[in-house]
Amino acid sequence: MNEQGMLAVVSGFSGAGKGTLMKELLKRYDNYALSISATTRNPREGETDGREYFFVTEENFRDMIEKDALIEYAQYVKHFYGTPKEYVLNQMKKGKDVILEIEIQGALKIKERFPETILIFVMPPSAEELKRRLIGRGTESMEVINARLRRAAEEAEGMEAYDYILINEKIETCVEAMHQMIQVQHNRASNNGAFLSQIREELKKI
Amino acid sequence: MNEQGMLAVVSGFSGAGKGTLMKELLKRYDNYALSISATTRNPREGETDGREYFFVTEENFRDMIEKDALIEYAQYVKHFYGTPKEYVLNQMKKGKDVILEIEIQGALKIKERFPETILIFVMPPSAEELKRRLIGRGTESMEVINARLRRAAEEAEGMEAYDYILINEKIETCVEAMHQMIQVQHNRASNNGAFLSQIREELKKI
Repeated sequence: MNEQGMLAVVSGFSGAGKGTLMKELLKRYDNYALSISATTRNPREGETDGREYFFVTEENFRDMIEKDALIEYAQYVKHFYGTPKEYVLNQMKKGKDVILEIEIQGALKIKERFPETILIFVMPPSAEELKRRLIGRGTESMEVINARLRRAAEEAEGMEAYDYILINEKIETCVEAMHQMIQVQHNRASNNGAFLSQIREELKKI
Repeated sequence: MNEQGMLAVVSGFSGAGKGTLMKELLKRYDNYALSISATTRNPREGETDGREYFFVTEENFRDMIEKDALIEYAQYVKHFYGTPKEYVLNQMKKGKDVILEIEIQGALKIKERFPETILIFVMPPSAEELKRRLIGRGTESMEVINARLRRAAEEAEGMEAYDYILINEKIETCVEAMHQMIQVQHNRASNNGAFLSQIREELKKI
């Protein structure tokens, strides 16, 4: 069977609980590696280079684009965000399933380039619940919350492009479901061409 | 989320262990229903109408074809085999995941008609192991065994058309893997159009 790691993209509304979900997944299973994005924006308080992001200059970033060192990149407002290729491919070679937490535009670019990538969209059980969670955080003004809800409505337009929809109702079942979505991908016929060829050859000779 | 049952087709070489696998799956989980095929061949000793097959006359069978009462059918030598539609659709409506154990031609016809069907191909870890299992049964002549191996080599040509390859090395892990392949299908974005539309509407109004 396929020993190479898989690539999984996780997206979802702000407030859907992606962060907690990923943390729990990585804590529970050691076959995952989380990809770290490169960005040209400045680190915020508490952020460390190489943990939340690789913080690079715009010159560095443009250089990476030119050298095809990014799997995907996008510009939001005036900053660049991208996924360094080397780390992802190395981890996959080692057999790690690599998870990218990125937005829809990046997700679609990656799917085009690596069709076996699994796209997972995490969402709350309802729009009401999303609002409750955003308010419940208590860290943001109603203005920011409403902006996030509007952004969610926009993002919702692209949900059909994802492979799986994961409703984050209970973290426990949700983590297991995500794990299974990624694990069954190892058994995809399209990921096991070499094994299939081998068994065909064996059957001819037997 | 999608409450309707899924359709899963299980195929595989004779000797791959499909039978044991399905029996164990149905014993362990109560969300499955096994589809029973209709056939025009005569019952063999020990076979009961409505358990192994629905045994019907050729006239009955042709009538079912005409009334579009079969999801798929095929002719092997001079007998017809087909999947009655009503049972499958009723069980799916009730929320049961329906499993069809049929061969590749039928599998492909079903996938064409119901694109969300999951096609699973069960195989032994190697061609040698397949031979060992067939001999180990002790019920068939070497001639029959060799015919089965030749048939396996033919069937192997179609394996890439399947969604998943399931290697039956240990029944325990294999049953769980099959269960997961079918269960994650409930979360496919393409199976949750209604839920996605609903959340989009909610987000617009919030």
